Amino acid sequence: MTTVGILGGGQLARMLALSGAPLGLRFLVMDNTEDACAGQFVPQLVADYRDQAALAEFATRVDVATFDFENVPAESAQWLAERVPVFPSPRALAVAQDRLAEKTLFRELGIPVPAFAAVDSRAGLDAAIAAVGTPCILKTRRLGYDGKGQFRLKTAGDAETAWAALGAQARAHGLILEAFVPFQRELSVVAVRGRDGEFRAWPLTENWHDHGILSASLAPASADPALQAAALEQARKVAEALDYVGVFALELFLCDGTLLANEMAPRVHNSGHWTIEGAETSQFQNHLRAVLGLPLGATRPLGSSCMLNWIGELPDASAVLAEPCGHWHDYGKSPRQGRKVGHATFRADGAGELAGALDRAAAALGRQAQVAPVLARLRGA
Amino acid sequence: MTTVGILGGGQLARMLALSGAPLGLRFLVMDNTEDACAGQFVPQLVADYRDQAALAEFATRVDVATFDFENVPAESAQWLAERVPVFPSPRALAVAQDRLAEKTLFRELGIPVPAFAAVDSRAGLDAAIAAVGTPCILKTRRLGYDGKGQFRLKTAGDAETAWAALGAQARAHGLILEAFVPFQRELSVVAVRGRDGEFRAWPLTENWHDHGILSASLAPASADPALQAAALEQARKVAEALDYVGVFALELFLCDGTLLANEMAPRVHNSGHWTIEGAETSQFQNHLRAVLGLPLGATRPLGSSCMLNWIGELPDASAVLAEPCGHWHDYGKSPRQGRKVGHATFRADGAGELAGALDRAAAALGRQAQVAPVLARLRGA
Repeated sequence: MTTVGILGGGQLARMLALSGAPLGLRFLVMDNTEDACAGQFVPQLVADYRDQAALAEFATRVDVATFDFENVPAESAQWLAERVPVFPSPRALAVAQDRLAEKTLFRELGIPVPAFAAVDSRAGLDAAIAAVGTPCILKTRRLGYDGKGQFRLKTAGDAETAWAALGAQARAHGLILEAFVPFQRELSVVAVRGRDGEFRAWPLTENWHDHGILSASLAPASADPALQAAALEQARKVAEALDYVGVFALELFLCDGTLLANEMAPRVHNSGHWTIEGAETSQFQNHLRAVLGLPLGATRPLGSSCMLNWIGELPDASAVLAEPCGHWHDYGKSPRQGRKVGHATFRADGAGELAGALDRAAAALGRQAQVAPVLARLRGA
Repeated sequence: MTTVGILGGGQLARMLALSGAPLGLRFLVMDNTEDACAGQFVPQLVADYRDQAALAEFATRVDVATFDFENVPAESAQWLAERVPVFPSPRALAVAQDRLAEKTLFRELGIPVPAFAAVDSRAGLDAAIAAVGTPCILKTRRLGYDGKGQFRLKTAGDAETAWAALGAQARAHGLILEAFVPFQRELSVVAVRGRDGEFRAWPLTENWHDHGILSASLAPASADPALQAAALEQARKVAEALDYVGVFALELFLCDGTLLANEMAPRVHNSGHWTIEGAETSQFQNHLRAVLGLPLGATRPLGSSCMLNWIGELPDASAVLAEPCGHWHDYGKSPRQGRKVGHATFRADGAGELAGALDRAAAALGRQAQVAPVLARLRGA
C-alpha cells in the first residue's frame, strides 16, 4: 500500500486523490486551512507548511510527496526531500516559484520571452522601465497567481504608483518588470515527464482569462502543426533542464506568429482540467504515475473539449448535466468572491457538436460572455 | 451539501463515491466489515444491517440512501425508507432479491425466462425436476451471488445430493429450480431510470464467466440491432413495472436466437464497469444522478471497451498501464481467493486496436485464457 502525500489540499489535491484511487493509492494532504476541500475524501493534516513537527509527521506517514500548490516554502520542500522522495524536486519547484529565475532559464534555453528586468529598488524600477519599455507589468517574483501581486504601467509616469502598490514587497519576494505583450492568443502546454525521463504532452490548449483568472480553455487548440510542435518542444526543453518529474504547464503567448513563454506552473494545471473527460489519461492520473515511476498513460485527446471555470459561486448544475456532452465538477467549497469553486467540461466528437452544447448551456446559465470567445474560435471567426 | 448514504461499502460504493465527488456530494457508507474498501475515501459506519441504532444514526446523517449490496434485509431497507428517501425502493429491492419473485415478474411481463419452479421440500424438488426437466440448477431464492448457493443437477438421480447441499436453506431463504439453458452467449443490459421515469441504457454488453464469477465483458456487444432493441425493451419493461429508480442490470442468455432473462441486479453492476472510461457517463455517476433527481447523463459508448476482472489477487499493473488504451482499477482490498480485488478496462476506437492491446497485455500477464473468448469475438470467430 502506497501513500502519496500532497502539500496543499485544494481542488488539485482533491482531483489527484480521486484519480489516484483506482491505482490503489492512499493519500494524506497537508494544508493550513481546516476545511481544505481535498479533506472531504482523504485524511488531512491541518498545519502551516513551515511547521516542522507537522512536516515530520507528514514524512513518516507518506511514501512519496508532491504538491497541489507551488508556493510551499522552498526550505520546507527541501527539508522534506531529505526524508522522503519529493517530485517535482525542490530545485525545480524553486525555479518555477520565481518569475525571474524561470524567465532567465527560458532565455538560456533559447525560448523566446517578453523583455524583462529585475527590480530591487525605486531607482531600479526606472532603469527597468527604460530597458523594457512601456506598456509593462510590475510583478512580485514569488507568490503571485491568478493576477494577484501585479501592477500594469501604461507609461513611465506610472512608476510612482506602481512602486506604492508593490514596492514594499521588493525585499520579501523580489520584483520583476515584464514588457506587456500585445498577444493575439494565450496557449498552454500541459505535459508530463516520468522518473525515467519519458516526456508526453497533451495537445496544445487555448485559454481565455477574465480579470487575471482562467475563464475558459479549448483543446485541442486550433493551431498549425509547426506551432504545436514548437510549443511542445519548448515544454520538453524546460522539463529536461529541470530534470522535472510530474505534470507541469507552460503558459505561452502567441504574438504575431511567435510563441513567447510567459510562465511555468510546476503542478497539474487549471488549463489541463479538460483531460479528465477529454483525454485517454487525465493530467491527474499521469502526475501520479510519473511521481510513482509507473508507465505514463496516453495523452491523446478524445474529441474536442471546452472547460469553463466557475469563479466565486457555482451556477445551476442542471443546465450542464442536461447536455449529453456536459460534465460537472463541484469542488465542495463554499462560495467566495474570486475563488475557484468548480468547473464544467464539454467533450464532443466534433466542433459543431461542442459549439451547440456550449451555446445552449451558456444561454441557460446566462454565461454567454464567458463562452463567446470559445464559440468564435470554434466557428472559425 | 447533500450526503448520500450507501448500504454496503465495497468496490461498488467506492466507485460510486469517486464518481459522485465531482457532483459535490458527500457520502456515508454502512458496512459490517471494519476494512470495507469504500471506507478508504468516505466515512463509514461499521455495523450490521439489522442494527437499528446504527440504521437510525445512518438515517440522521444522510439525505438519501442507496445500495452497493442487494442483500440488505428488506425490513432494514423498509425501516430506513420510512425515515429518508431510499432508491431503488425497498419493494423493487425485495423483488430483485428473490429469484422466484423476479422470474415470476419477468414471465408476467411477457419476457421469456428459462423454465422454473419453486422448491419448498424434498418431495417438492422431485416434482420441480419433473416439471422443469434436466439438466437443471437448484438455487437459493435469496442471498446467492457469483455462483454461490447453487447446485447443478445432470439427472433426476442428483436430487438427493442437491437436497443435501441446499435443502437446509429451503426454510430460511427458499429454493428455486431452474432449467439449465444451453446458451450460446451471456449478455447484459445495464440501464438507468430517473425519478421522473426517464429511461436510458448503455449498449448491450457481452459477458464471460469463470466458475460463476464474471471474468470479462465486451461492449458494445456485437449483436444485430433487433436483438439489442429487444434486450433494451425487456430492461425498460422491468424498470417500469418496479417503478425502479437508479442503475440496474438485466442478465440475459442468448439461446438459439432467443433472449432469456436470467436475473436482475438492483444496483450498479460489474458488467457496467467499462462505462467509467468507455461511455460518456459512467453507470456510477448516472446512478447518483438518478437517485438525486438530476438530469441523466448520456450513455453513448466511446469506442469499444473490454473489462477484465481481477479475482483473488491483482496481476502486475504495469502491463496494463503500459498499454495506451489500458486503465487500471485497484479496489484497495487485500487478496483472498474468489474475491473481486480490481479490474482493468481497455478502451479503443476500433476492434483491431482493442484486440491488439488485449493480446499484448494478456501475454505479459499470462492471462491468455481470460481474454481468449473476447479476442475470438473481436476477430469475428
